[in-house]
Amino acid sequence: MPPPPDVTDPRLSRQIAFLIEIDQLKSVLRRSNLVNLSRRENDAEHSWHLAMFAVVLAEYAACTVDEARVLRMLLIHDLVEVYAGDTFVYDSAAAADQEERERAAAERLFPQLPDEQATALRALWDEFERRQTPEARFARALDRVQPLLLNFHTQGSTWRPHGVTRADVLRHREVIEDGSPRLWEYIHSMLDEAVRRGYLDD
Amino acid sequence: MPPPPDVTDPRLSRQIAFLIEIDQLKSVLRRSNLVNLSRRENDAEHSWHLAMFAVVLAEYAACTVDEARVLRMLLIHDLVEVYAGDTFVYDSAAAADQEERERAAAERLFPQLPDEQATALRALWDEFERRQTPEARFARALDRVQPLLLNFHTQGSTWRPHGVTRADVLRHREVIEDGSPRLWEYIHSMLDEAVRRGYLDD
Repeated sequence: MPPPPDVTDPRLSRQIAFLIEIDQLKSVLRRSNLVNLSRRENDAEHSWHLAMFAVVLAEYAACTVDEARVLRMLLIHDLVEVYAGDTFVYDSAAAADQEERERAAAERLFPQLPDEQATALRALWDEFERRQTPEARFARALDRVQPLLLNFHTQGSTWRPHGVTRADVLRHREVIEDGSPRLWEYIHSMLDEAVRRGYLDD
Repeated sequence: MPPPPDVTDPRLSRQIAFLIEIDQLKSVLRRSNLVNLSRRENDAEHSWHLAMFAVVLAEYAACTVDEARVLRMLLIHDLVEVYAGDTFVYDSAAAADQEERERAAAERLFPQLPDEQATALRALWDEFERRQTPEARFARALDRVQPLLLNFHTQGSTWRPHGVTRADVLRHREVIEDGSPRLWEYIHSMLDEAVRRGYLDD
């Protein structure tokens, strides 16, 4: 990568270098497929899609949430994957060291920003991970809901090849229901329908 | 696409159908290349990247801006391209009917949401297009800045094959400077450097 062109303003140059560095998120592939089945989804477009979920579905959050905070959280929630890679939610072997890998990535990534921004974004990412505030609970629920919808609308294109069952999906219940009881209710009946249609094993 | 599974709640079903419909934005290609030059960028990841620009560079907005409003605007600014396609900023033939094509797309897309959400998102898109509020000015500036940075960091990978010159780029000056004088100053010196390095024709 070429050096930033304006060395006379180290603050702005660091911020721009960070924005160029995170361009890599567009190349981190997830397991979900696009609805048109042309290819797998990447983390950057997943993050955009989740933010749109927050814009359209805000009324279903379990508690009143600060919209800007939810959006910022969803925009940054997968940033660490530029170094840690994506971890498939049904892969328990990869899940074992996921926390450690992602923490190491966070320690490498966020300090590339000016100090107070690094601290603020790191705190926002920790908040998302800990799932203790209304904003984090809603954001985490959406992060679980979106791949389920992509799966349903692609006839179980990720569930079927990986042999995912309804019981596997139901392990997400708490995260979704806690952030949005109404969305959990919707997802629950969608899963029944997915089993009836043969998209998901019972 | 299968019918929404819960016909007992037409409001939520419409919202979910809209979120599935806009998945198509991930397949609308732009002219910019990713920084790693592996492929062209799509509209969904571009929208995510712009939202991250707003998070990191908010301090450089010409006036104080409402962050949630800027983020929402950037997230939705290219939605109409699911039907209208992307229009290359240096293609004056395509630009001729761009406004008409995008307006028709907006009239088809937004009404898929419940009425008050359709009205609100359409108003937000119109605000972005008209560039008259502080939020729209800053958002529009970022939308011009991001592809210039991608170009610089890929040695002019879009500029060179399309014979784009510094004079072509300088036609963006007003939009950028109006939303962020400081970012314009940065871009201006970056363009000088791009010409020196042979990424951009003088």
